[in-house]
Amino acid sequence: MALIVQKFGGSSVADRDRIFNVARIVADTYRAGNDVVVVVSAQGDTTDDLIGKAGEITHDPSQREMDMLLASGEQISIALLAMALGELGVKAISLTGWQAGFKTDRNYSKARIRRLQSERIENELAKNQVVVVAGFQGLNSHEDITTLGRGGSDTSAVAIAVALKADLCQIYTDVEGVYTADPRVVPGAKKLDLITFDEMLELASLGAQVLNNRSVELAKKFGVNLEVISSLNPVPGTIVKEVVDVEGMLIKGVAKDVNVAVFSILGVPDVPGMSFKVFSLLAQKKINVDIILQSVGRDGSKDLTFTVPLDDKSTTMKVLEENIARFGGNGIKVNDSVAKVSVVGAGMQSYSGVASTMFEALYEHNINIHMISTSEIKISVIIDKADADKAVNAIHDAFIN
Amino acid sequence: MALIVQKFGGSSVADRDRIFNVARIVADTYRAGNDVVVVVSAQGDTTDDLIGKAGEITHDPSQREMDMLLASGEQISIALLAMALGELGVKAISLTGWQAGFKTDRNYSKARIRRLQSERIENELAKNQVVVVAGFQGLNSHEDITTLGRGGSDTSAVAIAVALKADLCQIYTDVEGVYTADPRVVPGAKKLDLITFDEMLELASLGAQVLNNRSVELAKKFGVNLEVISSLNPVPGTIVKEVVDVEGMLIKGVAKDVNVAVFSILGVPDVPGMSFKVFSLLAQKKINVDIILQSVGRDGSKDLTFTVPLDDKSTTMKVLEENIARFGGNGIKVNDSVAKVSVVGAGMQSYSGVASTMFEALYEHNINIHMISTSEIKISVIIDKADADKAVNAIHDAFIN
Repeated sequence: MALIVQKFGGSSVADRDRIFNVARIVADTYRAGNDVVVVVSAQGDTTDDLIGKAGEITHDPSQREMDMLLASGEQISIALLAMALGELGVKAISLTGWQAGFKTDRNYSKARIRRLQSERIENELAKNQVVVVAGFQGLNSHEDITTLGRGGSDTSAVAIAVALKADLCQIYTDVEGVYTADPRVVPGAKKLDLITFDEMLELASLGAQVLNNRSVELAKKFGVNLEVISSLNPVPGTIVKEVVDVEGMLIKGVAKDVNVAVFSILGVPDVPGMSFKVFSLLAQKKINVDIILQSVGRDGSKDLTFTVPLDDKSTTMKVLEENIARFGGNGIKVNDSVAKVSVVGAGMQSYSGVASTMFEALYEHNINIHMISTSEIKISVIIDKADADKAVNAIHDAFIN
Repeated sequence: MALIVQKFGGSSVADRDRIFNVARIVADTYRAGNDVVVVVSAQGDTTDDLIGKAGEITHDPSQREMDMLLASGEQISIALLAMALGELGVKAISLTGWQAGFKTDRNYSKARIRRLQSERIENELAKNQVVVVAGFQGLNSHEDITTLGRGGSDTSAVAIAVALKADLCQIYTDVEGVYTADPRVVPGAKKLDLITFDEMLELASLGAQVLNNRSVELAKKFGVNLEVISSLNPVPGTIVKEVVDVEGMLIKGVAKDVNVAVFSILGVPDVPGMSFKVFSLLAQKKINVDIILQSVGRDGSKDLTFTVPLDDKSTTMKVLEENIARFGGNGIKVNDSVAKVSVVGAGMQSYSGVASTMFEALYEHNINIHMISTSEIKISVIIDKADADKAVNAIHDAFIN
């Protein structure tokens, strides 16, 4: 008997039929003799509907009230799934985030889990029943409801797997696993059987949108066995592990991320500490700066160019405008018609040909590169957004097909 | 400066415009220098929508999961109202039932409030802000969400008024107050300025559907000043107090209740203890038996006839069928084409003419009376449902117009 955590996203519980589909998967796992904790998101469009309701009231809602509002979404889906399990003859109980013991910090709308007090989940499991937990939500030290931000339900699932020392954490999606590229963009994309945490992290953070990267980080840190698997097609998915045999395919995937904006601060003085000033301010606002490019200093000044998530564009602009005088710069430029395209693969750095193969593929398709960033297991380029799908196909063809 | 509790039902917060209408009432009260706690129900059709979702899954949902599901409704409306208050420049914070400290018993779907731990509400009030509380819901000793059943938000509001020793508890509705009869049935119905708790209790329990009777009982027990007032038309409503001057109008109102079923157990042995057996069983199922009629014993047997709420018809039938052998009866009859029509007025019993005036009015309109029940402040008759509106008008004409 194993302890398995299964996570289902919003589209998997969007309506009655899909709820029963999920309930059958859970019931089969339970009847095979396993302890099962299920984590679910809000149904299909519920979150968007709730955001729409708030938008009718105000364009600047309190984030605390926004979290109060949005957390009702999972409360609906957990109750419905518990009922569906009951209807299939499987004893089940639903728990909200706070009932399940999720304690978070105070960052409404993108709270981080501080700890999971898992006694309640364990007590309910001990009663031989499936425990259905609301993903995406928790409680801060004020006893106020918080939400974990985008992809938060993945993190909820992994956190439960960590706390309960689960044998496996299955992340159900509407694709069959992790692919070498988005199958909607690259028809010849191949499903991977295995991938390392680091590769998965790069793919997730690069916009492959299969797994939330906080959840992968957490799984890596505590050695949780993850599986990305289809809720529609019952075939084995992709296993994410610490180390996998890299024999065979070197490049694990090509990822596209259009949630990117490129900022430039022009003409800042070429003196030490300037980057620190800028990036520490952005860090205080919890804005993740990704690729940084510093122009060669000339006439005592330089340009500082960097990428941020597109979601943080307006906050970033505000911070820069308020502080441009302190930086001594003479202008701010922003470009959001860009995309980041990346190849990912462990051990890539020991193969010298990867970068040149990638750049050649882009050159052959007449795609201009604005910025380049490399790490041990990836190479990313910033290009025009209009070229992104063409670039993904070109790179995928060069490495994988 | 006073402390005022204001309660708004689901239709009062049904959409954006109505939410802002409520927010303006609250903001005016707050800006007049009062401390304000607002209690709201789920928006308009939310509860029905949620019940519909559950109905698609199962016809026999766990009541615990049903309460989990339904409680999400108020969580949505409190967040939206808090946002609307913010938009009007009034600082506000929303609290769910459990955050507000409502502790209930374990009767899912019709839980009773055990106590209200009001520290959180008081602490938030002390920060000079409006506190918006989810009505209808609480937490039991298992830390599970419960709902209070029909009209529960009224009870939530009164419980807060009791705990905080509020100066006034205003129950906002879409009528202007308590009327001598339902204005939709009796065009000449008059609004009352004042009414006693006991009269209000009879009117509420008799189907006048203005105030939930548990809330009135609670208000009476702790001497809370209640006002029934319109959320659409800003005129003074009806004040409910312990004692009012009965000078002038004796009869306070005529009420109709069609949520009634009449059961008869036929041919039960005419021996002591029979009624006790029957009614203690029904009490265990929390079914409120109202009027009881026992036929005169003949040939050692008698018929036992009584009314129950129509909602409890199938439960009652099940209890009776399972136990008819124990009672020694030889048949069960049920009639749900009935209505209870009542006149209510304090001090009524000291006026001998009330009953005869009522019966004469019914006789003149050729309305047959099946059962009669009287108390200190009311006379009720069970008649055919088809005659109910005619009867209300006839009685109202006789006493009030």
